[in-house]
Parts: sequence; C-alpha cells; structure tokens
Amino acid sequence: MTSAIIVAAGKGTRMGPNVDKLFLELNGKPVVAHTWQRFDAADCVQEIILVVRDGMEKEFAKLAAKYKFAKPHRVVVGGKERQDSVWNGLEALSPTCDIVAIQDAARPCTEQAVIEETIQAAREMGAAVAAQPVTDTIKESGGGLLIERTVDRSRLWAVQTPQTFRVEIIRRSLAEARRQGVAVTDDTAACELIGQPVKLVVGHKPNPKVTRPEDIAYIEVLLKGTAKANPPSSKARRRPRRK
Amino acid sequence: MTSAIIVAAGKGTRMGPNVDKLFLELNGKPVVAHTWQRFDAADCVQEIILVVRDGMEKEFAKLAAKYKFAKPHRVVVGGKERQDSVWNGLEALSPTCDIVAIQDAARPCTEQAVIEETIQAAREMGAAVAAQPVTDTIKESGGGLLIERTVDRSRLWAVQTPQTFRVEIIRRSLAEARRQGVAVTDDTAACELIGQPVKLVVGHKPNPKVTRPEDIAYIEVLLKGTAKANPPSSKARRRPRRK
Repeated sequence: MTSAIIVAAGKGTRMGPNVDKLFLELNGKPVVAHTWQRFDAADCVQEIILVVRDGMEKEFAKLAAKYKFAKPHRVVVGGKERQDSVWNGLEALSPTCDIVAIQDAARPCTEQAVIEETIQAAREMGAAVAAQPVTDTIKESGGGLLIERTVDRSRLWAVQTPQTFRVEIIRRSLAEARRQGVAVTDDTAACELIGQPVKLVVGHKPNPKVTRPEDIAYIEVLLKGTAKANPPSSKARRRPRRK
Repeated sequence: MTSAIIVAAGKGTRMGPNVDKLFLELNGKPVVAHTWQRFDAADCVQEIILVVRDGMEKEFAKLAAKYKFAKPHRVVVGGKERQDSVWNGLEALSPTCDIVAIQDAARPCTEQAVIEETIQAAREMGAAVAAQPVTDTIKESGGGLLIERTVDRSRLWAVQTPQTFRVEIIRRSLAEARRQGVAVTDDTAACELIGQPVKLVVGHKPNPKVTRPEDIAYIEVLLKGTAKANPPSSKARRRPRRK
C-alpha cells in the first residue's frame, strides 16, 4: 500500500513571530487543509500520516472533522529537525506500506498528476521527487558578492515535494544520514548518501511553498485556477495538461 | 550623467498569443508604466531610453502623457535579440552619459535602493547587478531526469535587473559578444567575455518579472505593499529597511 506523510511540524519564522503559516487561510481554508485535501483526494494514496508540533494534535483532529477527510489518518508528533520528523512519520506507517510520499504541509498546490507520477516512479526506481526547471538566470559567486561565472541552468532543477520512496529505501537513507551525523534539508539528499538514484518528476504548474506573507494572495489565485481545472480524478485531464 | 534603458521590445510568449504583457494592468496601471515610474522617481537617474517593438512608439508617447513622467525620455526601436535592443538603447544615450542602468520593462517592483546601489557600485567597479540568493533546494542532473548531485546553493544567485554599467564597459562587452558571435541572455554575461568583474547588489524585496498570467495577482499585492513603504525619495528609509 501507499501512504503519504505530511510534514507539518516546522516553525516557519519568515511569516513573522506568532504566525503559524499552516493555519493561515487560503480562500477561506487553512493552508494545511488544502494540502491534506490533495492527498485525501488522490486515488493512489491509502493512508495519511500527519507529523505535527507537540500540542497541535487537537487542531488537526478539528480539521479532519470540519473538512470530512475520508482517508484513514494518524497524527504523530515531530522531532527536532525535519529529518527527525520524517523519521517519526515513517515509524507510524502501516506495516504493509511499501511506498511513501513525503509532502511539505506548506505546499497546497501540488498537482494530482505529480503525486501519481512520483509514486509510479518510486515503485519503478526506488525514489522520485517533484521538480521544476530553474528559469532564473543563475550566477555563482566565490562566496562573496562578485560573480564568478554564469551557471548552465539547463541542468538545474528546483526540487519540491512530494518526495516519494520505497519505504525501505528512505528508512535506509535516513539511517545513514543519522549514522554519518549529516543534516539533510530534503529527503532525496539522504538518498545520495547510499547511492540511490532519484528520478525528477516535472510538474507543469507552480507548486510553491507558503513562506512569506505576500505568497498568500498569489497562491489563492493558483488555487482558484486548479479548483476549476483539478477534479479529484485527474487521469482524464492528464493528456491535455501535458500539451 | 546616469541614464536608464528600459528594454520593452520582447515578445513574452508565456502569457499566451496576442497578449502584450507589458500593457497588462497592475492595480489599474500598465506593467511598463510601473517600471517607468520607478526610474522616473529615482533621483540618481537623469534620462530614460525606452527600447520598444517597431510600431509601438505611439503607445509609449501616450503613456508618457497619461502618467506625466517628468524626466527626459526617448523611445527607440529594438533589434532582433535582447542584446541588439540593448545596443540600440546605448546608441540613443546622451553623449555625456557615463553610467547606464539597464532594466527589464517587465520588472515593475524594483526597489529604489537597489537602483541607487547598482549605480553606485557600477561607478566604483564598472558593473553591478540586482540579485537575490537562491532559496529553493537545487539539484543538478546529468542532462536527463536523474539527480546527479545536490548543488551548494549558498554560492548561487538569481540575477535580475537593473544591470548597471559604466557605458564604455557595456559597449565594449556587447561588441565582444558580437565579435565572438555569442548570444548573451543577460548583459552581465557579456562582461564575463572581457573579464570585467560584476558586483552583486542584494535586493531585500521580491523583484519578479511578469511572465505568466498568475504573476499578476501576486505582483499587485507586492506593489500595494511598496506603494505604502516606498516614497519617491528613498534615502530616508534605507536604514530601517535594512534591519
């Protein structure tokens, strides 16, 4: 079976003090409820683990009741760093789970087709991640504020979530990161430690993370667009979207 | 004297056919009028050259009249590629111009302080560009869809505009690009051809380019924020903003 882990244990300081960005409203619904909805509606996902900050369990129980999420879910408490939170999520998976999609709670726009494709690719290859080509002009500095060279952006990808894995592979990767004492800011970086190849799954719509206050209005517009274009069953429209 | 060249000759196909993104309205005012306004209000800029598509001259004359831009300006027609358009802009500069700030017309949010700092840095060092640190997690592929490595993003910068130069340096750089037959997508890349160092000037607010339809709502929010925070004379507030 395939599970999703929604990582909702971060602090997100760029929004300002005392603002929990996951509970800011987007078109009248909290950020994290949008994200949860995406996975609740994904046919290929059978259970959802929410990793939350200690003391927030009740808020998530309220969300589940209010939005009538249909899929089995469990709420677990996160750890000190992101990788500790993911670890706790992995510990809470059903024993029969063999594929896991790990998602930032602050990414409410992830396309159904991208969720499905990362799951398919993880099944085939072991690991996959949602990604988009870098479109900015990128320069490398020597560490200071002088340009050293223009970087060939045709090989650069901004990676997002879901990051999706065969369960034994992500367990082994994160265990290796712990063993080496390496801090990994994303889960595919842990795969690099054990030489596990990771497939890039190209999303065709923006999949931003709520980070700064001005992101809210932008993401509201994106969500209005996908609400019309993104019915729960995405298969029917996958072809037209790839045009 | 210091001049600005606003490059408004591009086609911008990502908005859809028959949409001129520079004339889309942001809070009731065309994109390019916001950009023009930024430079019209910059104390350190003495003239403005607009490089436009053939046949669009009248539209720009209308804008100047409607928004009562105060600074001397000239409208010239662009060339085939971006670098040809910049070249035409350079040809139109006043003979006494020694510093030129080259700006994408589709970037309506550029901070006054960033304009000033690139001009100051170009005066001191020859060349400078508005830039922001890359915040996405970046992976490099081997050309296909497999991750090859995680890139150390601490040395990566997304460069924007203005790109600001001593006039003789950008002339020499673009002449070298022509001589070598190299297509440069940004003007600082031409400087690399003659070994000219370029200073990165770090902007503290988003400075996006209007590219896709969903950018409009986001940029409207940004502009509402800066309209309050960004009076024409920026000197008084530069210190607080750097906090």
